[in-house]
Amino acid sequence: MNEFNLIYQTFLAQSQTAKGFQTANNFAKIDRAIGDDCAVITPPAGQKLVICTDTLVQGRHFAGNWESVESLAFEIGYKSVAVNLSDLAAMGATPHSILLAIALPQRLANFSTDYETWLENFAKGLFFACDNSGVALIGGDTTRSDNLVITVTAQGFANSTIYRNTAQVGDEIYVSGTVGDAGFALNNLENELGKSLAHRLHMPTPRVSLGQSLVGIATSMIDISDGLVQDLGHILSQSASDGKSLGARLDLDKLPTSEPLSQIELKERLQYQMTGGDDYELLFTMPKGTTLPNLTTPVTKIGEIIANNGLQLFYQNQEITEENPLPFDSFPNLAGWSHF
Amino acid sequence: MNEFNLIYQTFLAQSQTAKGFQTANNFAKIDRAIGDDCAVITPPAGQKLVICTDTLVQGRHFAGNWESVESLAFEIGYKSVAVNLSDLAAMGATPHSILLAIALPQRLANFSTDYETWLENFAKGLFFACDNSGVALIGGDTTRSDNLVITVTAQGFANSTIYRNTAQVGDEIYVSGTVGDAGFALNNLENELGKSLAHRLHMPTPRVSLGQSLVGIATSMIDISDGLVQDLGHILSQSASDGKSLGARLDLDKLPTSEPLSQIELKERLQYQMTGGDDYELLFTMPKGTTLPNLTTPVTKIGEIIANNGLQLFYQNQEITEENPLPFDSFPNLAGWSHF
Repeated sequence: MNEFNLIYQTFLAQSQTAKGFQTANNFAKIDRAIGDDCAVITPPAGQKLVICTDTLVQGRHFAGNWESVESLAFEIGYKSVAVNLSDLAAMGATPHSILLAIALPQRLANFSTDYETWLENFAKGLFFACDNSGVALIGGDTTRSDNLVITVTAQGFANSTIYRNTAQVGDEIYVSGTVGDAGFALNNLENELGKSLAHRLHMPTPRVSLGQSLVGIATSMIDISDGLVQDLGHILSQSASDGKSLGARLDLDKLPTSEPLSQIELKERLQYQMTGGDDYELLFTMPKGTTLPNLTTPVTKIGEIIANNGLQLFYQNQEITEENPLPFDSFPNLAGWSHF
Repeated sequence: MNEFNLIYQTFLAQSQTAKGFQTANNFAKIDRAIGDDCAVITPPAGQKLVICTDTLVQGRHFAGNWESVESLAFEIGYKSVAVNLSDLAAMGATPHSILLAIALPQRLANFSTDYETWLENFAKGLFFACDNSGVALIGGDTTRSDNLVITVTAQGFANSTIYRNTAQVGDEIYVSGTVGDAGFALNNLENELGKSLAHRLHMPTPRVSLGQSLVGIATSMIDISDGLVQDLGHILSQSASDGKSLGARLDLDKLPTSEPLSQIELKERLQYQMTGGDDYELLFTMPKGTTLPNLTTPVTKIGEIIANNGLQLFYQNQEITEENPLPFDSFPNLAGWSHF
């Protein structure tokens, strides 16, 4: 069997019997999946189609060396789906299905003692992410490339969606889970603390049910893929209107912190929490005083949308200024914190 | 402006004012395009969603050397869309929109004397293909990679679709346009005849309106991306049922041939016509004696579905056999012709 048949069989054999396929097919009928020129779906009546695509590139979104690529097959398969489901979550959509476009190096086929095992583990990770969220693999494309490049497209449906550009002055800013873990892990893959957070980097949890729960409640939402400050900046710049810019007050002492990350120095921790990417938590705004619905995912209030451009940083209700640089020895270098 | 902003601006600036965007938005409302976590569409009531993804890799689907990549920016942009629209055409669907995932080499930014021009030409080609078919660019992803990898996802809608697995014994086999041109061009980029067919390789015409016209008429359809015999083989193997395999009679003298390709030796020509990929013509079947509707794209009857497995080759109504190898000196080597 040649590689391409092997890939086809690996995924075809599993795709239509996977748990996620059944769930998706009940939600929106899959008229045609893998094996034709296109996939065909019957959209649920009256719902919006929500769609996104994200690419993972070897050496950028996961390790560049072949030994790591081989050992992380499951995680790479998982993450290629999860980052897209996170985008759907950030719209409040219900994920339905994915297309997988995979560009595989010849070298992968040659170097590995067990190419089939790699593909099987990759497929297991991919289907694990799919099954967790009731998502079907319904199509794709396989090509050859010098390095491993994986592009997943995900489609979902929603009665109503949440955008980035609809935050209002006075809205409170919330974030799900904990932040900074993935950024720390990425830069500390070799030490024990980094290893204890590696799952946050390799296997982020798309906050799908949280996103759905916030439809009709959150005024704006985004997922944190580039870092809290940069992604908050997208909400602020896109929500600004009539020439009026928006800013944010952030309470640094409120940033939700995992137990491992709380062990590192405050200054370093805040750097990861403010600028570290790959968290795939949801950042959202709600009108002040909104009562949160019952949520299974923890969320934390970390600040407020303000009329002034830029960031106002607070620590224990005291504004951080040149004169009062607490919790720092001196006023923090905001270069990496102010992408907007 | 950094590269990523440049890319964003290049496409964002054009996407929502492009002719294709307006057409698509009238067909199915685009609630949200570029700039959020996902794109959002209101599907036309009662229609199926038809969706596909195809990757173009530098050095495989277009030239590997940087000079060619630079000079073919428009064509690469065009083709990355066209190959996907061809897949939608093969289902009989009406294309609506695309997502563009582009992995750009650092080197592209460094080597080119004019990076902005490359991106602008790429975007022009992409929008040319979109505008031709009333398609909107509504989202995507930009990443860095060692080589240029472009994955486009296309979505369309259809009241009813045409599959690969529904051909019947006795159906007549048709193909659109002419075949073999792209394969010949790929292998003859340096000579005059090859150059005169280069547009067929670089800028294939997705047969969108033909595909739509055949809904309710064709019994099966596929686009020729891998070569006539191989793609016909997909129809035959997928249409076989109850353990009965299907085959095809092909009339080699009927294969539609462009004027330039008719100038080369018959044996070489047939090789390209039977096995050359990248034609992106539609191959379809209809019940014997079906009257064709008025079509703006030429189509040619080239054979018939038969109950016997494999290919029966005819030339001027005479079967090609060991004893009667006409039009060849000896029985043709079918190795490359029989992928099924």
